[in-house]
Amino acid sequence: MIEPRTLKGFRDYLPEAMIPRERLIATARDVYRSFGYSPIDTPALEYLEVLKGKGSDETDRLMYEFEDHGGRMVGMRFDLTVPLARFVAQHVNEIGLPFKRYHIGSVWRGENTSRGRYREFMQCDFDTIGTRAVAADIETGLVIYELIRKIGEAFGRPLPFTIHVNNRAVLSGLLQKLGLAERSTEILRALDKLAKIGREKVAAEMASTAGTTGEQAEQVLKLAEISGDSDAILSQLAQLVAGNPQGEEGVERLRAIVRGAAAGGVPESALKIDASIARGLDYYTGAIFETFLADLPTIGSICSGGRYDNLAGLFTKQELPGIGASLGLDRLLAALEELGMLSKVRTPAPVLIAYFDKDRLDDYLRLAAVLRGAGIGVEVYPEPKKLGQQLQYADRRGFRVAIIAGEREFTAGRCQLKNLATTEATEASLQDPEQLIASVRALLS
Amino acid sequence: MIEPRTLKGFRDYLPEAMIPRERLIATARDVYRSFGYSPIDTPALEYLEVLKGKGSDETDRLMYEFEDHGGRMVGMRFDLTVPLARFVAQHVNEIGLPFKRYHIGSVWRGENTSRGRYREFMQCDFDTIGTRAVAADIETGLVIYELIRKIGEAFGRPLPFTIHVNNRAVLSGLLQKLGLAERSTEILRALDKLAKIGREKVAAEMASTAGTTGEQAEQVLKLAEISGDSDAILSQLAQLVAGNPQGEEGVERLRAIVRGAAAGGVPESALKIDASIARGLDYYTGAIFETFLADLPTIGSICSGGRYDNLAGLFTKQELPGIGASLGLDRLLAALEELGMLSKVRTPAPVLIAYFDKDRLDDYLRLAAVLRGAGIGVEVYPEPKKLGQQLQYADRRGFRVAIIAGEREFTAGRCQLKNLATTEATEASLQDPEQLIASVRALLS
Repeated sequence: MIEPRTLKGFRDYLPEAMIPRERLIATARDVYRSFGYSPIDTPALEYLEVLKGKGSDETDRLMYEFEDHGGRMVGMRFDLTVPLARFVAQHVNEIGLPFKRYHIGSVWRGENTSRGRYREFMQCDFDTIGTRAVAADIETGLVIYELIRKIGEAFGRPLPFTIHVNNRAVLSGLLQKLGLAERSTEILRALDKLAKIGREKVAAEMASTAGTTGEQAEQVLKLAEISGDSDAILSQLAQLVAGNPQGEEGVERLRAIVRGAAAGGVPESALKIDASIARGLDYYTGAIFETFLADLPTIGSICSGGRYDNLAGLFTKQELPGIGASLGLDRLLAALEELGMLSKVRTPAPVLIAYFDKDRLDDYLRLAAVLRGAGIGVEVYPEPKKLGQQLQYADRRGFRVAIIAGEREFTAGRCQLKNLATTEATEASLQDPEQLIASVRALLS
Repeated sequence: MIEPRTLKGFRDYLPEAMIPRERLIATARDVYRSFGYSPIDTPALEYLEVLKGKGSDETDRLMYEFEDHGGRMVGMRFDLTVPLARFVAQHVNEIGLPFKRYHIGSVWRGENTSRGRYREFMQCDFDTIGTRAVAADIETGLVIYELIRKIGEAFGRPLPFTIHVNNRAVLSGLLQKLGLAERSTEILRALDKLAKIGREKVAAEMASTAGTTGEQAEQVLKLAEISGDSDAILSQLAQLVAGNPQGEEGVERLRAIVRGAAAGGVPESALKIDASIARGLDYYTGAIFETFLADLPTIGSICSGGRYDNLAGLFTKQELPGIGASLGLDRLLAALEELGMLSKVRTPAPVLIAYFDKDRLDDYLRLAAVLRGAGIGVEVYPEPKKLGQQLQYADRRGFRVAIIAGEREFTAGRCQLKNLATTEATEASLQDPEQLIASVRALLS
């Protein structure tokens, strides 16, 4: 006999975890599609040379790699961005540009599980490739807004959140203007600690690692600390970078995002220019997005991304600029759980028909077909067990209504509808399908 | 520079392939859910000992296996049944019985690709574990029926099909009655060739491999060749197995399936008792299902399954009977393509708003938000390129309607709706959102 167990860092999804997970994925898919992003999929396994050296040293080290039966060195994908780069380079003539895609799939990293990380997790990305247009920047913000709004709707209540937006070109422009362009890595590294160690220590670190003067440090800190409403921030940023074309363009693109987001229906309170966010040092070059839940800001950004200059430089000479973002599925599910927005329901069907009279199976099946025909999910209990046992089964799984009918009920042309939350029972017609459907719907609504 | 390519036997899914694939998966999910099957997921990687020796010699040989960073021998799952067995054995106390689950996920086998097989493919299974009740047999048939019916609906036209059902216990009962129980493997192997080599040669093979007499062979062939409507077949089967309890129970369970399927809404023409199907030699012990498209019978069964006595005997002492089936996603997609039911659409959104006037981006975004709010998928072209180029983009991707509005149209409060299939243009209001939505809907319906 073999012990049934999963590998360390891997997990099974039981129905109570999988049901909200599927709902989240379906919501993301619907939103992506509504903006015209198309689905793609790529293999779990790739040639090792496609994956190796394309992420970071860490992803290289954590990658699952092996030799396949044909002697090829292969790796399991560790993200969906490297496969996207390979995909676009390979198929650019078939897909055409601009190309908008979403990709929802599992990725694998041999992570240290002591940090609560899993070795298999799902990514949920959307990207627009092949255009530098600010319309794509704006749209990325609109998609993030719709995504989190619809997720709140799908889980029963609004989920207040703020999208933080920045443009890397603003800081780059300022550094250029200050003659610090070559020091941007050190300055970003110091700035990143602003919330933790305060402005004095950041200024000190910049002085020692980037050789900034007091005035230079002051300008950089001023940029990171700018606050106020969008108009106020934009005019301060414009002042700071005035005269530097890169910085000025960054500010103009931020202004277009603010204006376009409002036109696209994003309330002012949901989008905030945040000059302090940078998201990594090398990859992003333009707009950057992070998204925080008002009720749980400490869990970090639940949807992040940004603009990059060249997606697939290692696979093709064609320059492929793009912008995209990724929904943090696992983080968001953890947040929904912490906010008490996940129910423990283990069935996707709300109605259970009790198998009460052992000779009436065909009648139960007929009844179930009527309700299913009206779009109501129905399970028929498979065995004529004691009613108490069947109701316990219904309770445990989170069915909301049980339909009970025996010989007496069929003769009378009525059945019992039991509301499993309140345990109240009402009667409904067995003879008039429309009435029955209406009664069940009323209980479910 | 690295050549962008996929591994042999693996493939990318481009939008035109992925859109119907997602539609198929969504349809299956909806149908499974409507019967109360719950979603689960399991890891792509399992301990090798969990997978090895659980399928066939072939699956063992084809499995992707390697040593992970922690020195564990691991394998990539080659089906969803072995993981289900491990899952149920591991979680039986949490999930409770009966347990109904669906599982849609990728599996990997290092297949010989010269046979047109892929090394990564998706399975789409549903099973009911922990009950021997005939209600679960009936339900399996009902799910298959709804599945193929709804898939036809989702792809635009009815897809005529027949579900072939049998019960392994009928043949087993007959063989027992004939004193041939010990020879069932040889007899099944010979019977399997009936359509190919004809009854004479099958009888000869049975005589030589199973030592049957002429009369025994005649009885076995009679069973495999029974035809007529369900009532006629059932009464002939009942005669053949009369006196053998196992065979009689098999016939009674087939009778219950026929009756229950009718009660559950399956038309008589869609379900056929077929005593000739056996589906493998060892695994199935009761009801068996295969499903054939009337317009493409030669592609083989598109949805198959059956009842088994003990799912997880290698993982737990608890006996776990069950029944389930699997939708053949790839085969069905190939069939839909062959039947001309797949369009070449590469966008999930039907409407493209042309970016016509470079100063009107915010107006286009506003327009898109109005339509999206009404549930209509809309893409805004990201750059103010030439209209001809944007319309070509729309055509190639399969958008159905283009909305064109420039300075003149905005001033007049009207826009152009271009039906991309007919190239006809109509006008619609820009001032009254309800009217605009109605006009677009009319074009899309």
